[in-house]
Amino acid sequence: MNNKLGDQTIIFNNKPRIISNYSIVGEKEGNGNFKDYFHYILKDDLFGEKSFEHAEQKMLQFAIEHSIKNANLKINEIDLIIGGDLLNQIISASFTARHFDRPFLGVYGACSTMAESLAIGSAFVNGGYFNNVVCATGTHFSTAERQYRFPLELGNQRPPTSQWTVTGAGSSVLSLNGTGHKITKATLGKVTDYGIKDVNNMGAAMAPAAMSTLISHFQDTKTTPDDYDLILTGDLGKLGSEILMDLMEHNGYKLGKNYNDCGQMMFNNNQKTFQGGSGCGCSATVLNSYVLKKMDEGVFKNVLFAATGALLSTLSSQQGDTVPGICHAVVIERDESKKENKK
Amino acid sequence: MNNKLGDQTIIFNNKPRIISNYSIVGEKEGNGNFKDYFHYILKDDLFGEKSFEHAEQKMLQFAIEHSIKNANLKINEIDLIIGGDLLNQIISASFTARHFDRPFLGVYGACSTMAESLAIGSAFVNGGYFNNVVCATGTHFSTAERQYRFPLELGNQRPPTSQWTVTGAGSSVLSLNGTGHKITKATLGKVTDYGIKDVNNMGAAMAPAAMSTLISHFQDTKTTPDDYDLILTGDLGKLGSEILMDLMEHNGYKLGKNYNDCGQMMFNNNQKTFQGGSGCGCSATVLNSYVLKKMDEGVFKNVLFAATGALLSTLSSQQGDTVPGICHAVVIERDESKKENKK
Repeated sequence: MNNKLGDQTIIFNNKPRIISNYSIVGEKEGNGNFKDYFHYILKDDLFGEKSFEHAEQKMLQFAIEHSIKNANLKINEIDLIIGGDLLNQIISASFTARHFDRPFLGVYGACSTMAESLAIGSAFVNGGYFNNVVCATGTHFSTAERQYRFPLELGNQRPPTSQWTVTGAGSSVLSLNGTGHKITKATLGKVTDYGIKDVNNMGAAMAPAAMSTLISHFQDTKTTPDDYDLILTGDLGKLGSEILMDLMEHNGYKLGKNYNDCGQMMFNNNQKTFQGGSGCGCSATVLNSYVLKKMDEGVFKNVLFAATGALLSTLSSQQGDTVPGICHAVVIERDESKKENKK
Repeated sequence: MNNKLGDQTIIFNNKPRIISNYSIVGEKEGNGNFKDYFHYILKDDLFGEKSFEHAEQKMLQFAIEHSIKNANLKINEIDLIIGGDLLNQIISASFTARHFDRPFLGVYGACSTMAESLAIGSAFVNGGYFNNVVCATGTHFSTAERQYRFPLELGNQRPPTSQWTVTGAGSSVLSLNGTGHKITKATLGKVTDYGIKDVNNMGAAMAPAAMSTLISHFQDTKTTPDDYDLILTGDLGKLGSEILMDLMEHNGYKLGKNYNDCGQMMFNNNQKTFQGGSGCGCSATVLNSYVLKKMDEGVFKNVLFAATGALLSTLSSQQGDTVPGICHAVVIERDESKKENKK
């Protein structure tokens, strides 16, 4: 049995399916470009909690619960929850997992965490280890700002290369039983460091990692960008996406109209988020709303979801370290049993 | 294909082997109970670096490099590195992975990270996704103290229930090709919360999680504690181990002389570590030195390695949250082709 393809890619021959999904976002995100696609939009970013950290946990719990419900499963039919988040010691995911009384694997890939969870989850489901696996992640603007940058009360000015951490959580249920789009391959990324030190330019820090994983993916699978309806990076933002396109072209790969970026797509131009959205909640909510919905409709049939993460802590930056990036990618193929309904 | 057993346990029918391993520790650990078993003992806890954080990364890199070398493999023959650590955003593992230019999965299970890595790594190797997978983790007393507790310079008095974060890193190479002890099962743990809030009593916080995973393991695999030569928890420490034994007995399981705890075993009584060692480096270095060596000798033939983690951040504690725990367990069976040499 060899489920490896090329250097970094693995194949899931049993084709684990995303049998259900759920997205919940904050008010600002709910006024953005995907307002018609999210399952639930908060009216209050505290979500009735006393702290933003507890609100982040509650969003994640809400997304997981509803994705399980949408799969017509009971919580005790879930075999494993895989998740992570941006807070120190991934407390959002860990604390949330406590409410489900099911096995939990904590993972961390910064904003690539959704793709990392899906890759590990697919391997577990494909290998017959577990039947139903939940992959979930989320972030909150207000928790990330005060952990990584400045106290919210300071009202600090944001530099033009900065991105806006998405308030939101997304959850996907993977299984071999049921209907849904299929995860057929995963390309696990390398930590890639081009020496960027500007913590307000995450797009530049992550673009080389996205390039590394995309090129490895195309080489391993003997595909080209044209083989996909949609190549979607995590949250490089506008500037980071342009850097990626340049880097790819320099290496002989032209990313055309089928390329986009979750961070770039999340907000509209009037929302003053500069380069766009970021945070694990960004790609998690875009995937678990717009992307899977458009796959339902038949608009996208073959998606390369390549979430990107910037690897740093406040301490590493204070000590003068660079910001390496990582990017994990999964291929999602349309469930052709679903009726097409292109709008 | 069903590789699931009971509720939380998975089976690795292809029996991934630990084909090599390596442990590196600090000076204090090198004066402890396992001084004759570690591969490398530092003379200087800074390991020639300018910060303890960089020393932690260097230890991890050193352990990974030497475990690969001991497996007679070149770095480009490694398919995947899985690892994590206790620092915010697991920068030690992420930054270290950068030096190898190989795919990397970041995981976080606090001090259970070594067992979590081995469980995921075994699933990947067993499933034919990757041939050679490195699982590694480490901690440093001085980085953990200043991140989680007080500035080192303060010389703060430590409470009697506290443990001492181990300075050390351990690495195991998993493969289906080669000789070595076999990982045959893994029981993935649930996040378990008994409401402990005392951040200086991690043993009490983690013991319920250890109980949960051990009982699930025994039920899933239809085994009893007597079926193992060694049941080894991660780093409950002395008090936590006693709590675990009480909890287990209350549930009808008697942990006898075959039970021990890495934290409890690490230091001798003159080393003033109170309840013993802690940190992901604790169970990682004990496993990758003493335990595997004693398995080589034939002293242990069937080991249940159940690493435990306390899930908290400084922020979660400051906000009054409890400290849930998690415990992941793997079964390691002796490679009977190795010549016995019981001392």
